[in-house]
Amino acid sequence: MATTQVKAFGTEAPEAALQQMNIERRNVTPKDVEIEILFCGVCHSDLHTARNDWGGTIYPAVPGHEIVGKVSSIGAEVSKFKVGDLVGVGCIVDSCKTCDSCKQDLEQYCLNGFTGTYNGKDKHSGKQTFGGYSEKVTVNEEFVLHIPKNLDLAAAAPLLCAGVTTWSPLKHWNVKEGSKVAVVGLGGLGHMAIKLAKGLGASVTLFSRTPDKIADAKELGADEVVISTDDSQMKSVAGKFDLIIDTVPYVHDINPYVATLNISGTLVLVGYLGPLEPFLNSVPMILGRKSVAGSVIGGIAETQEMLDFCGKHNIVSEIEMINMQDINASYERMLKSDVKYRFVIDMASLK
Amino acid sequence: MATTQVKAFGTEAPEAALQQMNIERRNVTPKDVEIEILFCGVCHSDLHTARNDWGGTIYPAVPGHEIVGKVSSIGAEVSKFKVGDLVGVGCIVDSCKTCDSCKQDLEQYCLNGFTGTYNGKDKHSGKQTFGGYSEKVTVNEEFVLHIPKNLDLAAAAPLLCAGVTTWSPLKHWNVKEGSKVAVVGLGGLGHMAIKLAKGLGASVTLFSRTPDKIADAKELGADEVVISTDDSQMKSVAGKFDLIIDTVPYVHDINPYVATLNISGTLVLVGYLGPLEPFLNSVPMILGRKSVAGSVIGGIAETQEMLDFCGKHNIVSEIEMINMQDINASYERMLKSDVKYRFVIDMASLK
Repeated sequence: MATTQVKAFGTEAPEAALQQMNIERRNVTPKDVEIEILFCGVCHSDLHTARNDWGGTIYPAVPGHEIVGKVSSIGAEVSKFKVGDLVGVGCIVDSCKTCDSCKQDLEQYCLNGFTGTYNGKDKHSGKQTFGGYSEKVTVNEEFVLHIPKNLDLAAAAPLLCAGVTTWSPLKHWNVKEGSKVAVVGLGGLGHMAIKLAKGLGASVTLFSRTPDKIADAKELGADEVVISTDDSQMKSVAGKFDLIIDTVPYVHDINPYVATLNISGTLVLVGYLGPLEPFLNSVPMILGRKSVAGSVIGGIAETQEMLDFCGKHNIVSEIEMINMQDINASYERMLKSDVKYRFVIDMASLK
Repeated sequence: MATTQVKAFGTEAPEAALQQMNIERRNVTPKDVEIEILFCGVCHSDLHTARNDWGGTIYPAVPGHEIVGKVSSIGAEVSKFKVGDLVGVGCIVDSCKTCDSCKQDLEQYCLNGFTGTYNGKDKHSGKQTFGGYSEKVTVNEEFVLHIPKNLDLAAAAPLLCAGVTTWSPLKHWNVKEGSKVAVVGLGGLGHMAIKLAKGLGASVTLFSRTPDKIADAKELGADEVVISTDDSQMKSVAGKFDLIIDTVPYVHDINPYVATLNISGTLVLVGYLGPLEPFLNSVPMILGRKSVAGSVIGGIAETQEMLDFCGKHNIVSEIEMINMQDINASYERMLKSDVKYRFVIDMASLK
């Protein structure tokens, strides 16, 4: 199929630094939208994929799935977008659209596997997909989102992954005015969870291991910060929360948090993939009808719903803008949690 | 307060056999119903309490919380029952009625602690409560259930604990016509889970470790039996079930069952209290929005709903009738799972 070369930033090997390279993008097919990328958020998954931390990375790899930009061209059958529209692309650029999950707008759980924005398998070319660290991207209009005009475009980029990853469980577990929500961890995901839960009218508590995040969390909208290493503080919130969103990306004991769930409450893991160590104790779960669950990103319709909600409530991410050439140093800072709260690449720097 | 001596069967110490004894029952207060006990089911909790397996047993202890009988006397203010009514009492004989749980008809999760039918603390006398292995029991009418007349009274007794313990999660997780339900373990709880899920219109699969339960499970209504030790059979039901009710009372690996949950499905533990060994893996939970939860018995209104449902669908437990004097031997048989599926004591044998 017809393709065009575009500039990108990617890596040739797990241990290699990211550097400028050229990649092929397909030319627009009838249902495609071509997007001039203006900003791209930097997610931990970008780093994990670049370095093959999860295995399965195909090189060269171009990360980036928090993409915002402007429509630069559309296919003949595109009906939802026109040239010049402000748009976004998140983690998903295709799915089967026919399975039970897709039919329920749950493309993130596509039973045939959704196509990831990067390191996925492009159904058009048969090759792997390349992400948003690039000048342009071509995406089927069904997987492109409208960005509300009133939002700061760069700060809206992280909504496409960090935003919807926390929005989806808030909605699925029915958070509303008066709900009691807690958030574990204050990073890219955690700070969005606070803002979105607050936007939905919940009272929001941050669990943090150290007091140094209290001021920041309150500025982001948290009503309360509970120091999780302080037993008396933990006891003071026993049985309190309807929903806990646990964003911590490494193994940690979730039993102390389960104790703070209300009857019928749910703790939902969105950050840590692996065995729950130490052993999860079923006793409080049974005696309080509590659940431990997981959730991953969100569907396309749900992502649009979240973006519209953010437009209405003027919610964006807290970001630190970087140039494309800063990406390797920025990865190192991310590994030290030295970012408040998301790096966003100004793609003008790639030109 | 005024009391009357009644005959009972109980134990004086963890290692002692159960034997006949006299206990004091309070005379009816204005809101009380006095019940002549006709049959009492034998639950594993009876044995655990008699032997102090969980600690905290006060002796003498009189077990029994699957009680059915006939109203023999009522207090002056009782409005829901009259002498001669067929009634039941389950695991709960009192609760605070004021906490958030009680106000939602979730007395089983009473935040101030419900009063257990045995080994609880009677609010009237301040002493411990005695269960249904006795001639009579006096209970506040708010905690007494109507038993539909068309049901076999002895076989209805286990509905009061085993029945509602499986009914409550079926209802909470919204099982209905066409739902796909699986049951782990075929004992007192498991066989009721099959019957009730089937009654609600679900398709029902039993997970069993050995093929020797296939015929029985199908006779009870199961559509399918999957041998959990057979990898190919387990793979054939990957991603299938909306709800799994896990009734197994000892530690076991639940990860293979989580793999058989559908997107957004829930595995609910009703039997095993303790650490989930080996480690529960969060990966399939996150990638499929799956939950692991717990649930304990059910509320009073829910128990009545279940009994009415059983009346309508003519659902009762499968029982083996015993005399009161057989209880010690029956406990030994229960420990070997040698009962299909619930012992019920004919209380006439105590006279």
